[in-house]
Amino acid sequence: MSDYSLAPDGTKYYMPDEEKTKHENKILDEITSEQRTLGRKIVAVQGLGFVGCVMAVVVADATDEKGNPYYYVHGHQRTSERSYWKVPVINTGKPPVSSSDPQVPELFQRCVNERKNFRATWSEHAYEIADVVVVDIQLDATKPEFGKAELGYCDMSHFKAGMRSLGQTIKPDCLVLVETTVPPGTCEKVVKPILEEEFTKRGIDINEFPPLVAHYYERVMPGARYVDSIRDFWRVYSGVNEKSRKLAGEFLNNVLNTGEFPLTELESTNASELSKVMENSYRATNIALTLEWARFAEQIGVNLFAVRKAIRKRKGTHDNLLRPSLGVGGYCLTKDPVLANWAEKDLFGVDDNLSLAVKSVNINDTMPLHTIDLIKEVIPELEGNKIAVLGVSYLENVGDTRHSPSYTLVKYLEKENAEVMCHDSYVEHWQEWPEKKVHQHLRDVLPEADIVVLAVGHDPYMELEPEMVTSITGKKPLIIDCSNFLTDERIKAYKQLGCEVRGVGKGHIKNL
Amino acid sequence: MSDYSLAPDGTKYYMPDEEKTKHENKILDEITSEQRTLGRKIVAVQGLGFVGCVMAVVVADATDEKGNPYYYVHGHQRTSERSYWKVPVINTGKPPVSSSDPQVPELFQRCVNERKNFRATWSEHAYEIADVVVVDIQLDATKPEFGKAELGYCDMSHFKAGMRSLGQTIKPDCLVLVETTVPPGTCEKVVKPILEEEFTKRGIDINEFPPLVAHYYERVMPGARYVDSIRDFWRVYSGVNEKSRKLAGEFLNNVLNTGEFPLTELESTNASELSKVMENSYRATNIALTLEWARFAEQIGVNLFAVRKAIRKRKGTHDNLLRPSLGVGGYCLTKDPVLANWAEKDLFGVDDNLSLAVKSVNINDTMPLHTIDLIKEVIPELEGNKIAVLGVSYLENVGDTRHSPSYTLVKYLEKENAEVMCHDSYVEHWQEWPEKKVHQHLRDVLPEADIVVLAVGHDPYMELEPEMVTSITGKKPLIIDCSNFLTDERIKAYKQLGCEVRGVGKGHIKNL
Repeated sequence: MSDYSLAPDGTKYYMPDEEKTKHENKILDEITSEQRTLGRKIVAVQGLGFVGCVMAVVVADATDEKGNPYYYVHGHQRTSERSYWKVPVINTGKPPVSSSDPQVPELFQRCVNERKNFRATWSEHAYEIADVVVVDIQLDATKPEFGKAELGYCDMSHFKAGMRSLGQTIKPDCLVLVETTVPPGTCEKVVKPILEEEFTKRGIDINEFPPLVAHYYERVMPGARYVDSIRDFWRVYSGVNEKSRKLAGEFLNNVLNTGEFPLTELESTNASELSKVMENSYRATNIALTLEWARFAEQIGVNLFAVRKAIRKRKGTHDNLLRPSLGVGGYCLTKDPVLANWAEKDLFGVDDNLSLAVKSVNINDTMPLHTIDLIKEVIPELEGNKIAVLGVSYLENVGDTRHSPSYTLVKYLEKENAEVMCHDSYVEHWQEWPEKKVHQHLRDVLPEADIVVLAVGHDPYMELEPEMVTSITGKKPLIIDCSNFLTDERIKAYKQLGCEVRGVGKGHIKNL
Repeated sequence: MSDYSLAPDGTKYYMPDEEKTKHENKILDEITSEQRTLGRKIVAVQGLGFVGCVMAVVVADATDEKGNPYYYVHGHQRTSERSYWKVPVINTGKPPVSSSDPQVPELFQRCVNERKNFRATWSEHAYEIADVVVVDIQLDATKPEFGKAELGYCDMSHFKAGMRSLGQTIKPDCLVLVETTVPPGTCEKVVKPILEEEFTKRGIDINEFPPLVAHYYERVMPGARYVDSIRDFWRVYSGVNEKSRKLAGEFLNNVLNTGEFPLTELESTNASELSKVMENSYRATNIALTLEWARFAEQIGVNLFAVRKAIRKRKGTHDNLLRPSLGVGGYCLTKDPVLANWAEKDLFGVDDNLSLAVKSVNINDTMPLHTIDLIKEVIPELEGNKIAVLGVSYLENVGDTRHSPSYTLVKYLEKENAEVMCHDSYVEHWQEWPEKKVHQHLRDVLPEADIVVLAVGHDPYMELEPEMVTSITGKKPLIIDCSNFLTDERIKAYKQLGCEVRGVGKGHIKNL
């Protein structure tokens, strides 16, 4: 481990030593006594990832009718090589994530520099002084084999360590509010027992001070409405006992726009945890369904996107139908069904499974291979072919590459010895595949391309003119449309220029 | 075969002889010349089942701005023992289906007796004189093994015979409008070739008169809005060539409320056929998902219906989520995924399948067995137990028993030598199981019942008071709630009376 953490802009931030931490703790104590005088409660946010860092400023930004903030917020980030840099960066008033939502930098500037009620720290002392801890630790599912989500499991050791450190530090009446997406049963069967154990070790009577654990879930969408997706959105919550449930409701009512987006209280944390992973499983299943029908539509000359539009006219009963694409990425839909399926067996010992949701994950995970099949319909032998893949993030107009289906696509194309050039103007650095160069300019990937894969619906790709593509490539490349990015007119134009075109779910292309 | 057809009210209608048919044909010719003078086109509806009989009167009821009907409609029903009775019954002005929709008898009365532009006939001469034939022949999927929908197939022989008889009789410029839900590919690969073959045999030049075949689909819901679900609803259509597509659009614009519910024209009959079975597969998959999560919720003490309510707050993205129940019945969701899966292999020879939709059918078909598991949690040995099953139709407040999940439930309960009494005030006669008595009065099924299964959400069951149930049974029966028919208050009341209660997806019952 090196002694510094490298920020995305290349700056090295050296890890604090013991002396610095002592000084930091003093600062935390001073802030606390000052803020308590102002009548504010102290909140610590555990984990400053995609959800935690923005949730932290949303909490800090919440005020009463007179404009006084309810809370002082400490964002806690461990001194890890990968993420420690977030602490000093945040403390200059800058967000540690890049976002197309202008509200994100505004919130950081306002809360850090103007209102001065948000600050990042590496010191766990933040937990000792907190009235509320919001848990946003990352918790992943591990899928040990490609296309076999039924073997997936959840390694909770890091999450459990985080809970243990809370149990060792927090005040007995501190509310622990788990926002991390967790396997159903986690609050009851993991968090609560760990806190009880650590409380008991500290001599705290858990009958008098039963740990206050609650759960609520986020529905964050990175993108242009990032902050809205946290603050102006329906939330579901519960607690392991009445008091924690009540405190969680009060906290969320203070922080979120619950007037317009009312809270739903469920009867148990099992219920609210299940709700989160079920709603994502619903979407994952929905997409998997479209993928199988897309393949059918391709075979029988049908444009599945026109069919989808026809079906979705039935509002309220059929308009949730999603669309086929290269595959499914992101942090939620790829893992939540696996978390749930694992929990059923491993946390509850139930001899049953969520076979439909798990099967859906498998269909979604392996879907990028279908795009390779589409290519091979026209070019059976990929070796030596130059392929330009446009888009490596998992979502249009966002630079988030987590579990991106482009990763699977490019890996498998390279296995066949194709020469793959990736482009994504939203992604400078492919975090999950640092060795793979992501180009910022189309002129760096298109020349001499035999195949152009429109993988993601970033706006600039939607505007690409066929003449421009053939002119830059200097060839008549095969064009692959992964999710209805091309209109029929544009497809005809490509064909008139001598290009073959194929598309996921677009069986009608051959008739155009 | 007997020489009469028995109506549901017990009346015997004797089959017409040759003499009568000759006379009938003369009537048809007279009607035709009279109606053509009035400027009306002649429509024949092939098949007077749940869809055909009401579609026929909706067509007859359509008028231009001046109130003049566009069409004279012949409803055609073969002289089958099971259904011939519909012809004389309709011709008195009565519908051949019972319905809670008051519009249904009104329409029959108006079109048959007042406007006199609708009439039923057994004579195929109706096809010879028709300008438009609407095909509403029944077409089933066969599932040869319980819980193995992947083996399902579609026996098209009856449907093909119907098409052949059209090919032998219709005018070359008659529009054949297929409304039957068919495997994708049917119009192109089955209907069109048969008509071409028969036209050619008749000496018709199919280059000059290519058969005019079009497809559109219904979204009929029997129940209180039966007619609205036909007339005031979005429709999707296409044709095998430009002329048939155009004529189909004109016909549908004349008869349906397309001002408020615009038509969707798709590029091919493959597309519109696929759209229909895909939208039902979407719903079947959606329900199957909830069934697996219901079982999980039961195991971990969660009320899945509260979770569903929380998830469905996200309008437009999550509000299509359906609810778990005893299982899935009816004519569409149980067979349409099978038709599609079969068509992919058998009509198109594609080596792929719709595995997710097919798996969903299997989950749905076998779901009633889960209700037996719920019973056995409390009463492991069913032999000798008296079980009252409330509801044998597949839908609340409707008497339709087609593919009802109660059928599977009762069959499997009887296999375990339980004594099962069925009740359904909407069903006098269980068409798919004529030997099984369906009682009309709760007092005939409840006395001495050890187990009461609330299988279907008919209104009267929703009002049943726990005291009444225990008082009539004279016992403390186990109560099984198959789809959230009991409020928490009512469950508590049952428990206070000493009854055990279990419910599909209602894991919280044990904590009440």
